[in-house]
Amino acid sequence: MVDKYSKQIELNIKKYVPFKVDNFGKLIRSKIGLLILKSLNINVNSSYIDILTVVELIHLASLLHDDVIDNETVRRNSPSANLVYGNKLSVLYGNLIISNCLSVLIKIGNIELLSIFNTAIENMCQGEIIQSETLNKKTTIEDYIEKCKLKTASLFLAEAKALKIISNDISFDIEGFAESFGIAFQIKNDLDNILTTKSDIENGIYTAPVIFSDSISIDNTAIEKTKGLIDNYIEKGITLLNSIEDSLYKSELIRIVRCLKK
Amino acid sequence: MVDKYSKQIELNIKKYVPFKVDNFGKLIRSKIGLLILKSLNINVNSSYIDILTVVELIHLASLLHDDVIDNETVRRNSPSANLVYGNKLSVLYGNLIISNCLSVLIKIGNIELLSIFNTAIENMCQGEIIQSETLNKKTTIEDYIEKCKLKTASLFLAEAKALKIISNDISFDIEGFAESFGIAFQIKNDLDNILTTKSDIENGIYTAPVIFSDSISIDNTAIEKTKGLIDNYIEKGITLLNSIEDSLYKSELIRIVRCLKK
Repeated sequence: MVDKYSKQIELNIKKYVPFKVDNFGKLIRSKIGLLILKSLNINVNSSYIDILTVVELIHLASLLHDDVIDNETVRRNSPSANLVYGNKLSVLYGNLIISNCLSVLIKIGNIELLSIFNTAIENMCQGEIIQSETLNKKTTIEDYIEKCKLKTASLFLAEAKALKIISNDISFDIEGFAESFGIAFQIKNDLDNILTTKSDIENGIYTAPVIFSDSISIDNTAIEKTKGLIDNYIEKGITLLNSIEDSLYKSELIRIVRCLKK
Repeated sequence: MVDKYSKQIELNIKKYVPFKVDNFGKLIRSKIGLLILKSLNINVNSSYIDILTVVELIHLASLLHDDVIDNETVRRNSPSANLVYGNKLSVLYGNLIISNCLSVLIKIGNIELLSIFNTAIENMCQGEIIQSETLNKKTTIEDYIEKCKLKTASLFLAEAKALKIISNDISFDIEGFAESFGIAFQIKNDLDNILTTKSDIENGIYTAPVIFSDSISIDNTAIEKTKGLIDNYIEKGITLLNSIEDSLYKSELIRIVRCLKK
């Protein structure tokens, strides 16, 4: 539905990444942004494409560093960059991509945009640092959600803020929507991990299902409670879309958000 | 001679580094800047201190990542951060420090300064990437010097450009001086490695003494040629200081530059 814009973003990403990208992933961050813009009848010009490229690049750089940090071997069903290029180049490539993002923003010349994305990068780091410092520890559910905000929702939030700065036509609470979706997205990721490889538990990362369980072996009640938590954030986000006029774009947006329920 | 300003910079560094810093190192980058400012009778106000702090922080962040990349165990005669905090936190701390630097520059609000330091960060990455990609290869001496420019001189150059932007009273070729000093500084570092631990050769990093030798075992002629190369950059740098009026600060600056000859 917004595929032609996603293709432009892919081409842009290629320009700023110092290695061959075979799999761009779902590009969910930019897709959400594109669907919001289209729902609001906003013309997706190159400024929006630049901003959405920056969002995807910051995400990609964070994956490069995360995979080094977590010694991952697989990313998007392929060998991860650290496996192909080694830890050394993966760290450097991540740094270079961030530097390239900043160049794009510097070229746009709006210091507020720089501040927004720098805050996101800082928050993402802080989230990862908190996670590293609380390994093998059960935190409260509130602290867990705070970590989800920092690690994941902060980039969605920065995207929302940036789109709002570029356009004057965004009147609904896009920031509230972005943050709710971002939190739901991270909890869903964490739940999927527990329902499949359980590598998080192995690595001492205790997420919602563990926090909701009485022990590390996870019971069904804890899974249901986690799903309930995701649902809350999803519905909160979707409610914020109410003020937008109905359209095929809006329906697609809601469909994607509701996918997190599966 | 400029110790009171260096102390201010140390205090500033502490604010932006997420772990305890016991040893600030020589702070050579900021010291050179301070001595230039004092030689030119420029009042070292907080704007200069902020910029020089940013320079030292970018250097510190690069050390954190370099030590992870090179699996170092010692830095400034103490266990390196990657040994104390692990690779994971070292990468994240490095990222967070860069993010904090950008916050300082964003607060100053001058987009040109952001561009200057972002270019330095990009060049430093590129230098490291080139080094990683040419392991176990003898490059030409020109390519080696280009790598020294990227890896090391680019931060000195950024510092010079930034000081020039803040002050209108810098009329000598501070950029030329900074680049020459930066190159000499890196070659001297590389020479010291060859004359002591030789770990560079072990790691497949072939620097000037290797490039000047017929084989990997380094002969005296190669050492002398390397010293000659350092001397050239030092004298080039010092010549550029000629237009500055003589003072105790200028003498101290020249003394520090000449130290690279030892």
